[in-house]
Parts: sequence; structure tokens; C-alpha cells
Amino acid sequence: MRRERVRDVLHQVADGALDVSQALEALSFEPVESLGFATIDHHRALRQGFPEVIYGAGKTANQICEIASRIADRGDGVLVTRIAPDAAEQLCTTLDGVDVNAVARTAYRAGAEPTPRGIGSVAIVTAGTSDLPVAEEAAVTLAALGDCATRVTDVGVAGIHRVLARREDLAAARVVIVVAGMDGALPSVVGGLVAAPVIAVPTSVGYGASFHGIAALLTMLNSCASGVTVVNIDNGFGAAVAASRITHS
Amino acid sequence: MRRERVRDVLHQVADGALDVSQALEALSFEPVESLGFATIDHHRALRQGFPEVIYGAGKTANQICEIASRIADRGDGVLVTRIAPDAAEQLCTTLDGVDVNAVARTAYRAGAEPTPRGIGSVAIVTAGTSDLPVAEEAAVTLAALGDCATRVTDVGVAGIHRVLARREDLAAARVVIVVAGMDGALPSVVGGLVAAPVIAVPTSVGYGASFHGIAALLTMLNSCASGVTVVNIDNGFGAAVAASRITHS
Amino acid sequence: MRRERVRDVLHQVADGALDVSQALEALSFEPVESLGFATIDHHRALRQGFPEVIYGAGKTANQICEIASRIADRGDGVLVTRIAPDAAEQLCTTLDGVDVNAVARTAYRAGAEPTPRGIGSVAIVTAGTSDLPVAEEAAVTLAALGDCATRVTDVGVAGIHRVLARREDLAAARVVIVVAGMDGALPSVVGGLVAAPVIAVPTSVGYGASFHGIAALLTMLNSCASGVTVVNIDNGFGAAVAASRITHS
Amino acid sequence: MRRERVRDVLHQVADGALDVSQALEALSFEPVESLGFATIDHHRALRQGFPEVIYGAGKTANQICEIASRIADRGDGVLVTRIAPDAAEQLCTTLDGVDVNAVARTAYRAGAEPTPRGIGSVAIVTAGTSDLPVAEEAAVTLAALGDCATRVTDVGVAGIHRVLARREDLAAARVVIVVAGMDGALPSVVGGLVAAPVIAVPTSVGYGASFHGIAALLTMLNSCASGVTVVNIDNGFGAAVAASRITHS
Amino acid sequence: MRRERVRDVLHQVADGALDVSQALEALSFEPVESLGFATIDHHRALRQGFPEVIYGAGKTANQICEIASRIADRGDGVLVTRIAPDAAEQLCTTLDGVDVNAVARTAYRAGAEPTPRGIGSVAIVTAGTSDLPVAEEAAVTLAALGDCATRVTDVGVAGIHRVLARREDLAAARVVIVVAGMDGALPSVVGGLVAAPVIAVPTSVGYGASFHGIAALLTMLNSCASGVTVVNIDNGFGAAVAASRITHS
Amino acid sequence: MRRERVRDVLHQVADGALDVSQALEALSFEPVESLGFATIDHHRALRQGFPEVIYGAGKTANQICEIASRIADRGDGVLVTRIAPDAAEQLCTTLDGVDVNAVARTAYRAGAEPTPRGIGSVAIVTAGTSDLPVAEEAAVTLAALGDCATRVTDVGVAGIHRVLARREDLAAARVVIVVAGMDGALPSVVGGLVAAPVIAVPTSVGYGASFHGIAALLTMLNSCASGVTVVNIDNGFGAAVAASRITHS
Amino acid sequence: MRRERVRDVLHQVADGALDVSQALEALSFEPVESLGFATIDHHRALRQGFPEVIYGAGKTANQICEIASRIADRGDGVLVTRIAPDAAEQLCTTLDGVDVNAVARTAYRAGAEPTPRGIGSVAIVTAGTSDLPVAEEAAVTLAALGDCATRVTDVGVAGIHRVLARREDLAAARVVIVVAGMDGALPSVVGGLVAAPVIAVPTSVGYGASFHGIAALLTMLNSCASGVTVVNIDNGFGAAVAASRITHS
Amino acid sequence: MRRERVRDVLHQVADGALDVSQALEALSFEPVESLGFATIDHHRALRQGFPEVIYGAGKTANQICEIASRIADRGDGVLVTRIAPDAAEQLCTTLDGVDVNAVARTAYRAGAEPTPRGIGSVAIVTAGTSDLPVAEEAAVTLAALGDCATRVTDVGVAGIHRVLARREDLAAARVVIVVAGMDGALPSVVGGLVAAPVIAVPTSVGYGASFHGIAALLTMLNSCASGVTVVNIDNGFGAAVAASRITHS
Repeated sequence: MRRERVRDVLHQVADGALDVSQALEALSFEPVESLGFATIDHHRALRQGFPEVIYGAGKTANQICEIASRIADRGDGVLVTRIAPDAAEQLCTTLDGVDVNAVARTAYRAGAEPTPRGIGSVAIVTAGTSDLPVAEEAAVTLAALGDCATRVTDVGVAGIHRVLARREDLAAARVVIVVAGMDGALPSVVGGLVAAPVIAVPTSVGYGASFHGIAALLTMLNSCASGVTVVNIDNGFGAAVAASRITHS
Repeated sequence: MRRERVRDVLHQVADGALDVSQALEALSFEPVESLGFATIDHHRALRQGFPEVIYGAGKTANQICEIASRIADRGDGVLVTRIAPDAAEQLCTTLDGVDVNAVARTAYRAGAEPTPRGIGSVAIVTAGTSDLPVAEEAAVTLAALGDCATRVTDVGVAGIHRVLARREDLAAARVVIVVAGMDGALPSVVGGLVAAPVIAVPTSVGYGASFHGIAALLTMLNSCASGVTVVNIDNGFGAAVAASRITHS
Repeated sequence: MRRERVRDVLHQVADGALDVSQALEALSFEPVESLGFATIDHHRALRQGFPEVIYGAGKTANQICEIASRIADRGDGVLVTRIAPDAAEQLCTTLDGVDVNAVARTAYRAGAEPTPRGIGSVAIVTAGTSDLPVAEEAAVTLAALGDCATRVTDVGVAGIHRVLARREDLAAARVVIVVAGMDGALPSVVGGLVAAPVIAVPTSVGYGASFHGIAALLTMLNSCASGVTVVNIDNGFGAAVAASRITHS
Repeated sequence: MRRERVRDVLHQVADGALDVSQALEALSFEPVESLGFATIDHHRALRQGFPEVIYGAGKTANQICEIASRIADRGDGVLVTRIAPDAAEQLCTTLDGVDVNAVARTAYRAGAEPTPRGIGSVAIVTAGTSDLPVAEEAAVTLAALGDCATRVTDVGVAGIHRVLARREDLAAARVVIVVAGMDGALPSVVGGLVAAPVIAVPTSVGYGASFHGIAALLTMLNSCASGVTVVNIDNGFGAAVAASRITHS
Repeated sequence: MRRERVRDVLHQVADGALDVSQALEALSFEPVESLGFATIDHHRALRQGFPEVIYGAGKTANQICEIASRIADRGDGVLVTRIAPDAAEQLCTTLDGVDVNAVARTAYRAGAEPTPRGIGSVAIVTAGTSDLPVAEEAAVTLAALGDCATRVTDVGVAGIHRVLARREDLAAARVVIVVAGMDGALPSVVGGLVAAPVIAVPTSVGYGASFHGIAALLTMLNSCASGVTVVNIDNGFGAAVAASRITHS
Repeated sequence: MRRERVRDVLHQVADGALDVSQALEALSFEPVESLGFATIDHHRALRQGFPEVIYGAGKTANQICEIASRIADRGDGVLVTRIAPDAAEQLCTTLDGVDVNAVARTAYRAGAEPTPRGIGSVAIVTAGTSDLPVAEEAAVTLAALGDCATRVTDVGVAGIHRVLARREDLAAARVVIVVAGMDGALPSVVGGLVAAPVIAVPTSVGYGASFHGIAALLTMLNSCASGVTVVNIDNGFGAAVAASRITHS
Repeated sequence: MRRERVRDVLHQVADGALDVSQALEALSFEPVESLGFATIDHHRALRQGFPEVIYGAGKTANQICEIASRIADRGDGVLVTRIAPDAAEQLCTTLDGVDVNAVARTAYRAGAEPTPRGIGSVAIVTAGTSDLPVAEEAAVTLAALGDCATRVTDVGVAGIHRVLARREDLAAARVVIVVAGMDGALPSVVGGLVAAPVIAVPTSVGYGASFHGIAALLTMLNSCASGVTVVNIDNGFGAAVAASRITHS
Repeated sequence: MRRERVRDVLHQVADGALDVSQALEALSFEPVESLGFATIDHHRALRQGFPEVIYGAGKTANQICEIASRIADRGDGVLVTRIAPDAAEQLCTTLDGVDVNAVARTAYRAGAEPTPRGIGSVAIVTAGTSDLPVAEEAAVTLAALGDCATRVTDVGVAGIHRVLARREDLAAARVVIVVAGMDGALPSVVGGLVAAPVIAVPTSVGYGASFHGIAALLTMLNSCASGVTVVNIDNGFGAAVAASRITHS
């Protein structure tokens, strides 16, 4: 239940459109719901503007579907990340209106009320084609959080003119998410080109001494462009939430 | 030279207050100035809103002073981080108006014109007393960038009531910087309490398996609170610039 | 053969209920039994209060069944951890009364005599739903060792009110086992809330820079809450034994 | 202020020995006291049975002395670990009755009231002479927490008869702390000999591939003796607190 | 072609049993034979007393069979380690008299002449049942090199009486190979019990912080028993060759 | 489009063989072509002498085929590395004249015009048979880049006479690529034998403490032979490009 | 003794300008000279075109001076790298004509005959001012090896226009050495700009997660620009030798 | 007390040269002597042929002197490794006849009776001059253990003819110890040249990616020469003891 919905209820009480017992009813669910195997934090939307997102890895399809159902029951939007294909399929039969994105490995179902829009757009920049799944996870998440995204794809630094050619797109963004594997060098260049916040996402793309993304992670943590921040390897979701915290602040 | 200063010059030309040759003179320095041992990026202020900051480690006192002088000559503010005491001393004799902060290991001298203010304040939260030098570096940098900061000190999670007691201070901030060493657990708690952007700074405080901040760094990269972003170990400066990118966006 | 059983035999001799030759017979097995591929330590129960537990990984189904049979022959309880499904199946046809727990990957068969009860209960706290298999391994082990456990599930620090809401459950426990992956921050919070011994179990839940549990392990080793101890990644079994050493001391 | 002291006050009120305003005065300090650079958790003793311990590393002598004074003012005992010689000296001039242990790098001053005794003794076992400073830190901490310790020194596994010769001392302990560097093998042997809880402390003793204690840490985390728990490298303090949590439970 | 065979030829020439042209023929192969994808070192037996051993991993079945055939053609013994089941099968159809050991993952075929015997026997000690494949690889290799081995199985340090019970077997050996995973502590105990050379083999047995054998490897490199030497993780073959270098010296 | 082709066009214009509009047409494609999921850098051949090479890992067969088609459309040669068998098969049905090398995991199709030849030959030296796939990737790449290669196979340092026997082959090369796994020692020996540039390629061949090529990588980075340079683990492609940069300089 | 000098002697013999006994005398020194603590490889110049270079770290001043004297005695040039100030001072009193470079930590003394010149110049590009000592070591080494170098200083990617402004300098070089610490991103950009060989040198400049140059090293090994090769951290000497192998090939 | 001395006593009793009470007196000391800070293992010489060696690092000068005195009191030889200069000086004033080796960082005092000689000599081979301190520690230890050593110095693989020129010296040795830092490649070459046991000692010589000896350690563990064993980084002492275990077996 989002902050907006609670405010609505309170205004209706103030206006006499709702009496206290009705309002109580509307607000009367427990903030934390226990399912035995999970403790759902229904207050999160109220506290942070977006509902609890389900991290699909390590959960059974049954667990995912049950948690999703409880969240949907309260009218909140449901987003599952890192969902396995079979769990996604089962979720689609459990709830209607679920949108599965195979590349991003996400399942999404909009909430009852429109999501508040973030102010300004978010650019998602990728160094290479292989980074697309992570970028896609970020894009799906941003959409779920009420943000609009623009894509700047496959502009790695080995062909530096590619990213320079897109400077205007970058300059137009309120936040820039830069997704890169292998050498992870792109955020340093982008961070020097724009004044906006830059969130770097290392990916596990590469082999050998890329160490499944450690090389890119370290590059980004040591970026010579000041003020670049970093999230976990392949964490497109986290980068999107971080961007949305900014556009909604 | 900041964007504001250039805009001023252009307006004066438009208004006839400055003729073209004077304006040319005012704008006529090279964007990049070569000192042999350094290539100063005078355009950075124009491009990103803050001038080039001098990273003091690995530079001789002479190099620092010469770079600082060139930046000061253009009227820009000078900030040196990780400056050794003797270099700071030499800088004070080279330029007047330099403010040295021994805890933060910084030297700062304001520019000719007031720095544009960021919108909203930045909270700097520390887990322990030993994290203060990093927090102080962030605070000095924020001041130089035109941001105001509030401190929430020594509220590590082992006494969870300490941070809960400061929830209102946290809620009032536009951006929250959380500085923690050892287990680095504080950003996960703070990230769950506030809706604002949270920037986590691991510190090298600790011993043994803290591995000079790696433990805290990994904790933060894996934060179970969504959308927490991370900077390098002990990088109070970078966290402040990231925060300022947000408040100035 | 447990210490209690030996004491019984000796008392019966003292009381004349058993003559020496019968007692000798009862005690006459070799403390160490060699199977060629394994050397069973039958004295362990005598020495430490619990019989040798079979670590199933890396052993063939045949090896597991033969070792289990020898232990069962002496009337001791049999516990196998990390047992593969097919080995568990074969064990069920070899011995009767085997209880297989697929989530915990354990197989258990009670001994001939009741297990001595530990004093006080053990709380098993998990940060997330994905940590349940490790928690379940701990729970099965505790039951086998004569301890009773209470569960506090999915109370990770990103929603700090969840764990605070369970403070009384935590305060009631003689020992608290805290199971967490990703940032591994929960033991630091719990360690600050209770006075009882806290045993932290990092799990391999997470991705990227969680490094299969290293991040959580390091967090726990560096816990800012004093006196938190740690076991190996995913080692629910070890945490349970450690807890049981305390409740039986 | 310990739990016992608060109970005393309440009993005195119940008995009429103290009127309410006096009692209020006695209890009227804030549970959390802010010094600007530190937030002292005066409730910790109440919550956990021992007061906040000052970690000396990374704090200035002035900071240590001021925090210590505030704790001492409330009548609580003061323990500082990892204190530098000069800070220890300054502390001795600030407070009287401070006991400095140069080997353990600790400074200790007893509280106004006797510390509640733990039940059972704690054995501190070391593998080599070079591990003594860590063992000494544990011993000082145990004394401060009201526990009595016995020493079993230099009984590393390369001369296995040395530790076997001390089996009775080990068997008599309620908790065993095992301190070892280099191969860190001793806890595995001790863990197999005793039924009591075993807390392993890796030390940074060694060179080359000991990696400042990582080798010993990993050995202990992988102990083939079940139920051995581990604390951070060189963390004699933490092992002692963990032991004391057991003896006071 | 072993040193013994060459000496034979030379003696026969000296005795007139062989004329020079026949001797030349017998000795006339190139010491190094190129197969395009491999360069076989036929002189190795002459130089070091044992022929080139084929490391099966990363070679195709065809490559293994062709190299094996060329070695067999010269009358030398053939040993293949880390051979996949299908390659072993193909080798059995290519050459006759091949002995495949599935546990050890080896294929062996004796040479035309008996292998010179090593002086003294080699003890192969394992800490646990799961270490058997590595021990078996060592045993097969020793047999191929002309050494006889005795087994001491599953005597890990958590039940220290198990290894002490076998002291005489250990004392009787000329060389002791100790195979252990997890904590890798056994070589430190054995190294202190015997005066003979001790070769430690870490295994990848374990999970979590065993890091696929790194924990055991580090333990062994830091053994507090002097003069213990170490080979690569799971390298039973290498340990056997090292032992054989000693028994043949 | 290679530099040579552009020069041709310009000469034809100068000679009147081509009028300006025809020349414009010939040169009129965009240097960077966007496919949505990829941004092809058609100028690379012009800038660096070889066209963009497609890294097959992490790309779908469809993506590979589309990118390859666009490059082929411009008459440039197509090289795909790390291509999966099914993608290679699909590519063969998409374009004709594709040459698939299963060992090297490459697919290659020559461009419309002959590739400019490098000056001097490149020796590809391997330490063992298992290193052949990496060497093969280098060989295919060199052929595509217009270089000729000679092979020196399976000459690892454990049989030092093997590499010494090939000194003349090494001395004849303009550049030497040395491919080695396990101990990675061969480049140090070769680097001391020849005066030519030596490029070392660590491979992931080995097990245990080879850490998938890290051991060989570190060996090569620390080569006691001066001036040996190193590329990523298993990066036969990169070594070939580096060699070709030299032969074409 | 360089190859040129030997050829001279041989030509003089052919021309009758030198009789055989004189020539023998000139060539009669042992190729390897033993000093007890060192074995000097006087043939290296003959074999590789440059004499043995003395790595100063870990050698006493006496050892350095004696080795240097022996090399100088044969008329070869002497280069010492990583020389401590006091050893450099002692060397200057031992030999005349020694040129000490404090920034590069080198001592150099030209040989009796001019060094053969490399063909083409070498560009040394640095990302920041703090990288200068490593660049200087490369420059001194290049000079000693007969190569001429051009400098492009402080053009890190955070201000991408700085390196783009120097494209012509880069294009003019036969070999480009790129020196960078922190994120190590510059070689990827340079590698995409030029067709010449690019040798990347990671430096230990940075802090925290730069891990003394590991971050930069990994970045460079994973460069998305093809054909970039890498040397050890801070190894300006090695990069120069590698460049010189190219210019002399 | 060595095995020989005990046998002597027993023979004298058998011969009547010593009565039982005298023999008892001679043998009557405790095998383990406790000094409070140390537990001396006087039986080690009896069990293993050499007395307990004192590892000087981490022990105070007083502790070293007291332990040394107790060992000397029993007539055993005293060897201290890693001894600091001031501790060595104090030891010389405590005991007479102490031989200090500053390069090896050892102090040695012969026992009352001659040490039994090992059979065959030990070759100590070093790759570079900087490896000498480790080689010297091995040499001093071998002398103390009754072994004779020959030196082959500075024969690293970058000048492969240097080690080939010493093949006969290598072939004459019963055991070969190879000491190398940086790339650690020398043991692989030596292991292929000789049939004798080869013990490899990595040293911390090098910089950057040598990681204080890790690179050399990994190289040696992955040696492509079969049967090379490895000891800890810089552990010349351990290599010598391992060699002596062989020569005395």
C-alpha cells in the first residue's frame, strides 16, 4: 500500500467521505505478514514508495506465487527478479496480467493504482551487446517504479566515437546508469562527460581474468571520474532502484 | 571556470557591458593546460559544475602547489584531498585563504564566486568514532561543492536503538551518506528506513578479516536494502561528489 | 553408545543386575571400527555426547549405507547430512525408520534410547526465505541432538521492524543461531539485542560480489556486536552442534 | 549501569528505602549519550550484562579518555582494547585505578560494583608462544566480565602428546577457547577431545602463505570436529565475550 | 626406454651378444617424437627412471590413444591420469592389457620389462572417506613406479585416537603421503609423529570456506610440523612421484 | 572497409575512373551502424587495419548472424570467436563461404579484397597438447589478419631439450606467441632465448591451485625474462591481434 | 658484449686487421661469470641485443656495485633499476659516468659503443601525475636501449578530450606504452584509437579497492580494445624492453 | 636428547657400565617441560632425530634465551630461525658458542654430541641473487641437521644455459632444493633434469603481481615436472628439514 493510498484514506476521513471504522478497515492489515517461510513487509511501499520486490533465486515456484498473491491482494504491484522460466509460467497461471521478460528474467504485474512518476528520465548505457540482459532488468524495474528510460547500446570505449556521438542523449538524462563487463571502463568516460549522477553496474560478461565481473567491479570502484557510484555485479535491479530513489526525491 | 561565470560573460556581451574583445579575453584560456607533469582540465567546472579536484597522494608538494596556483589563477575554487601535512603547509604559504583540515586530510580555498547551492541537505551517518576521518572528508567536500551536511555519528547496528532514535534526521535528508567499517552493516538498515538515495562508504576500520575494508565493501555491495550504491573504500570525497551530483541535478 | 548407556551398564554391575561377563559383552566392541574405506569412531558418543554424524557429500550410497548400518547396530542414532536423493532412497531401503528431509538434505534415524535433552531452547533466525535449507539442516540436527528449536523466519535488516517485533522470542532463547546470506548483517543486530550466545551462519545466497557466501562470512567475522561466533558457509549442521554443546554443558 | 544495579534501585523503592524522586535521579541519565564524536550506549550493560567496551584502534587518546570518563562516571567498569601505549598512559592520568596490560594491549578499570560471576571456568589453550598476546587479551576480558580462566600454553599439534597430556584440564572447562596461528590445526584436535563448546581464535602468527591469519582462519572454519565456532583473526576479546555469553546464560 | 634397458643393450654389445648395427637399431629412435599435437619425451625414462605419464584432462580420446600407442611401441609402461570413462574405454580397445581404475580415474599398462623396485614402502594416510579417489590415484601411480604402498584410511584429527592407534604402521614407512581435505590438519599431526619424509596432499573435499581445497592447501603450507612438503590440490599422482623419487634415490 | 579500399576509391577519383557521386556512394555508409542491440564500428578497419571482430560468447545466434551480415555487406571480412556450435551452424546457413574451426571455436569468412600481409612470420609455441585450442584461436585470427604462423607444439619446460631443439624456429620468427597453462613457465625460457617480441598467453589448463589459469597468468606477469608481455587467460585471439599490430607496424 | 661488437671482431679477422690470437683474446671471456652471489650472463647482449640489467631491489649496495663493475669491464652499458638512494650513491663512487634518476629509481652508465637505434619512436602515455615514476623508469630504459620516446602526460579518461587532443602524437608512434593506475581505463581508449602495438602498464596508484594496482591490472587484461598486452604492476622497465624488442625487430 | 644418546645409555646399562639408578637419572627429565609461556618438547629429538627448533618471530628475546637455555641444558643443539638482531645479541651473551648468521637470520649452537650425518649431499639452487637469504637459512639448517650442501647460485631460467651448465652438480645431489621468487619457474626445469627429489621454495622476491611470493608459490604447485614438492614462501628452514628427513631415512 503506497503512501499515496494512505494519504487518500486520511483525506477522505477529513472530508467526511469515509467514517473512522471504514478507514480503520482500510488500514487494518498487519504491516508484516508471516507466511511461515516468509515475512512480507507490506509497509515498505508506505515507507519507501515502492513495494517489496521478490528476489526469485533460491525460492521455489510455490513460494514465489504465494508471496506474489499476498502482495497483489493488497493492490500493490508485483515485481519478481531472477525468476526461473518454470516459476514464471506458474506465476502466470496464478495471477492474471503478469508480464514476463525472458531476457531480463523478470515477471511484473502492475498495481491497482498508477505508480507515481519519477521526475526526469534515466539513460541506460551499455558497453556491449552481451550486457543487454542486465540493462533489460534495469529497464523493467524502472518501468515498474514509474520511471522512463532511454537506451544507449553497445558504445564501449574501444570505439570511443560511439559514446561521444551520443553525448546529447546522455546530457538529457537526470540519472545515467552505465552497464559494462570486461574492462568496465565506460563509466569513467561517461562520468567525465555528464554532470548528472552516474550509477555503474559491472556485469559478469568476459572470461579469464574478468573473474565473473570482479575486474569490471574494481574498475568502477576506482573510477577516475569523481562521484561514480557502483552496485553489485549484474545488479540491474539495484541500479534502477537507486536511480528511482533519485528521481523520486 | 564555472558555467555560471561563462553565462555571466555572455549576458554582459548581450547587454553591451562587455565588448567582444574583452569577452574573448575572459574566455581565452585553453580548456586544457599542460604543466609538463600534469594536464589541468579547466573545462571541468563548465562541464560538470565543479572544478578539477587535486588528489594529493603520490604528488609532490611542488606539483600540488603549482596545479593549485593555476586553478586559483582562473578564479576557481581549489580542493586538495589526501594531502600530506608538509604539502598542506607549503600550500598555505603559496596561496592565501587555504583552509586545512587535518582529520579529513584536505586543503580548501574558496573560488572567486560563490558556489551554487545544492537543493536539500545531505546526512552523513557514521557507524563508529573511527570512521570520522572519512566522514570529515565527505563533509569538507560537500561544503566546497555548495552542499550543507548534517551529522549522525556513532550509530552502528550493534546498538540498533541509536540509529532508530535518529530516524527523523535521516528522513529529512535529500541524500544519505553512510560511512561504516568492520561489518559495514549500517547502510542496509538505513537503506530500509529511508526513501532517499543512500550512498555507502566502506572504511578500512577494523583488523584481521576486515581486510582493510574489503569486508565492509562486500557487505555494502550485497546490501539487502534495494538501491544502495557504493563507492571505494575510505572514499568520502567520492561519496560527497555523488551526493552533490544528485542535489545539483 | 552414549555415556548414559555406559553408566547404566556400570550401575547394573554395581547393583548385581548384570554380571561382569555380561557387562563385558555389552561394552566389548572396539571403539574404532574399520570398514576399509572408513574408520568409524564409536567412542564419539561416549566422549562428546553425540554419535559420529555422516557427512554424505563425496561418499557413495553404498558407503553411506554401510557406515549407517554399523552405527545403527550399536543402537546409536544415525544422522546423515548433505545426502543426495538417491543415497537417501537407498538408505531407506537399508534401514527402517529413516526420516528424510529433502529441504535440509538430511536423513535421520533415532537411536535405541532417548537422546538427553539440552537445557533451554535454541532460536533459529533467518534473514530471508532463501536461507531456509540451511536453517532446516540446523533444525533437524538440533532435534537429533535432543534440543528444541523455535523459528524466526525472513526478518532481514532491510525491514528492521521485522526483527524488532520478535525481540521477545529472541530473548527467550538460551542460544540464538542466525542464518543470513547476501550482506550477512542480521547477526550484528541480533548480537546487540540479546545477551545469549549468538552463532552466525553465512549462507551462499546471493550473486556477484556475494562470492557464494564470502561476503556474509566476512561481515559476520567482523560483527560490531561483541561475542558473535561464526561457522562455515551453509554449515547449519555445525551451528546446531555448537548450540547443542552449549545446551548440554 | 548493570541490570543488577537497576534491580537494586527498584527493590529499594519497593522497600521504601528510596523514594521515587531519588530513584528517578538514579535512573535519569539518557541511555544514549552523545559526545559529538561518539554515541555511548549506556544501556548495553542493562541489555547484555556487560558495559560498552572501547575499541582503542583508530581513536585518539583524547577520545578514548573522554568516553572512558563518561562510562566511569556512571559507575560502570571500563575496558579498552587495542590501546596504544601513549593512550594508555594518558588514560592512567585521567582515571585512577586503571590496570594496563602491555602484552594484551588493554587498559581496565573495575566498576563500582562487583561483576556477576560466570558459571564454570574457561580454558584458554594456545598452540604456540607467539599466540600469547591474543590469549592475554582474552584473559583480561574474561576477568573483566567476571569469568575465571585457566591456561594451557604452547601445546600445538606437531607434538600431539603435549595437548593429550592436558586432557583433564580441558575436560574440566565449561568453555574452551583455542588460540592458534600458522596451520590453525589445534581446535580440530581439541574439538574432538571435549564435549564443551569450543571457540577458535585464528592468529596472525606465521609468514608467507599464512596470509596474516587467513590460513588459520580457513582451517578453523573447516574444522573436521563438529561444532567448533570461530571469531575474527587475533580477536581474543571477541572469543572471551562469546565464552562469557555462555557462562552467564 | 628405461636406463636399465639401455645398460642391457650396452652390456650385450660388450659381451658380443649384440653387434653394433643391432645395438644401433635398438637405440636408434629419436629421443623426442613429434605427433603434430604432441611432442613425446621418450628420454624421460632414461633421464628420470619413469616414462612420460599422460595427463588425460584436456586431451581427446584419440590424442590419448595415439600418444599411448607410441609409448607402448617402445616397450615403456603407459600411465594415463584424469582419464574420462569414454577415453579409457577407447584406450582398452586400442591397447591390450590396460588396467582401468574408475575411482582413481587412471588407466595403466605395464611395460615390457619389470619396473625397478623402490626401497622401502610408502604409507598413504587419508583423513576421510571422501579423500579416497585422490589416495587411489597415488596408489595406482606408486604401483606403476615400482613402489609398494600401505593404507591408513579415515583417521582424521577430530578423533585423534584413530591415527595414534596406527603409529606403528606410520613408523614402518619410508615415506608417508597424507591426504586430507576440509581443515587439512592431519599432516601436521603425522609430521610430528614420524621422522620420515611427509608429503601432504590437500583435497577439494569440503564446501563453503574450504574453497575447493585452498583451506587445506594453506593449512599444509603452514604446518607447524617442520619439513612437511606439499603438492597441488587433489594431486595424488604428484605425491606418488615425489615419494618414488625418494625411494629410488 | 579497409584503409586500402578507401585509398583505391580516392585514387580512382583522382584518375577520373570514378566520378564524385559514385565515390560518395561508395563511401556513404555511416561509420557506426546501430542494430538496436549492437552498434557496429565500421570505421575500425579504416582506423586500425582490421574490421570489428565479433565476440560470440553472450550473444544469441540471431544477433551474431545479423551483425556478421552487416559487416559482410560492406565487403569486410568476418571473424567470430568463442562461437557456440549451433550459432556457427546458423551462421553457415546465413552466409556462404564461412569456415568453422571447432577446436578454435571460430567462424571466419574472408573479405572481398585480400588482407594486407604482415611482415615476418609469427611462431605459436605451446607448452602442452591441452593448450591447443587457444593456440588454434590465435592461428585462425592470424590468418584472418594476413599473417602467417609456424607451430612449435608441446615443448613445455619439464623436458627442456624439446624447446632448445626448436631454437632456430624461434629465432626465425618476427614475433613469438607462447601459450602455456599450469606453471606457465615456458615464456620465461623463450623470452631469454629470442630477441623478438614475446607475447605470453596463460591458459586455464590445469586443476587445483592453477585456479583456472591464474597461476600461469601470475607466472607470466612476473617473468624473469625482460620484456615479455601478457594477455588475458585463454585469449589466443588477443595475442594474435597484438602480434599483428607488430607485423603491420 | 653486443652482437655488433662480435661481428666487428670477425670482420677484422676476415680483413686481416686482427689475427686469430688477438680475436680469441677479444672473445675469450666466459659467457657466464660467477661472483659467488651472482652468475652474470654476459652473452645476453649477444643473444638479445641488450646486456643484463640489474634489478636493484633485494641486492646489497656491494652486490650491485660488483655486478655493475664486471659488466662495465666488458664495455657493456650498465642499467640498474629499483635502486635505493644509498646504493646509487655508492655506485657513483665506484664507477664514473653514472647517471642517477631519483624519480625513476634508476642508475645508468652508457657502454663503450653506441647503442643500436630502434626504428620508430615510442609514445609513453600516462593517465595521471602520480604515474610519472613508472613512466620515467620506462623512459630511462628506452634511452638505454637506443630508443627515443615522446611523452603524453596526465590524459586520463575522466577528461576524454585530453587524450583525443593528442591523437596525432599517438598516431605518430611505432609503439605506445600506456601507464595508468586506479581504474586503468586509458589503454582501452588508446587501443581503440591507434593501429600500433599498445603495451599497458598498471600502476599501484590508488587506494582501497585499487589493491595496489590489481584493479588496473585486471582492467587492462580485460581491455575491450583488441591486442593490448600487459606487463606487471609498476613495471615501466618491462614495458620499455617489450617496446624495444619491437623497434629492434 | 637424541635417539643415539638414549641407546647409548641403554647399552651401558646392559653392559653394566651404568647402574639403573644412574641410568634413571640420565633419563629422568620430563619429556615436556613447561616454562609458563612455552612447552618444550624435549622428546622431539628422540622421536624425529632433530631437537625442537625455535621460531624466533613473535617471541621476545627473553623467551628465546630461556627456551634455548633449557634445550642446551639437556645437551641438545640449539637452532633459532627468524631471530631479530637484538635477540641474537642477547642470546650470544646468554650462551657461549652461538653462531649468528645475519643473512640467514639464524643463531646456532652445536649440541654436546656430533649430529648423525645424512647420506648424500643436498644441492641448494637459487634463481637470483635476491633469493640468497632464504637459501642461506636452508644451508644453516642443513649444517645443523648433519647434512652437507652444495650451492648453485643465480641460474634463473631467463638465461637457461646457466642452469644447464650445472647439470652435473645437480645430478650428483641426493636431494635438490630450488629457491626462486618472481615467476618461480626454475623448479620446473630442474625437476625435469634430475631424478632425485626436488623441493621447491618460493620466495617473496618481486613486486606487483608477485604478491609477496604467491605467484612463485602457485607456479611451483602447478609444476609441469612431476613430483616436485613445495614448502611455504621463504621457508628455507622447512625445505632443509624436508631434505634432511630424506637423507636420514
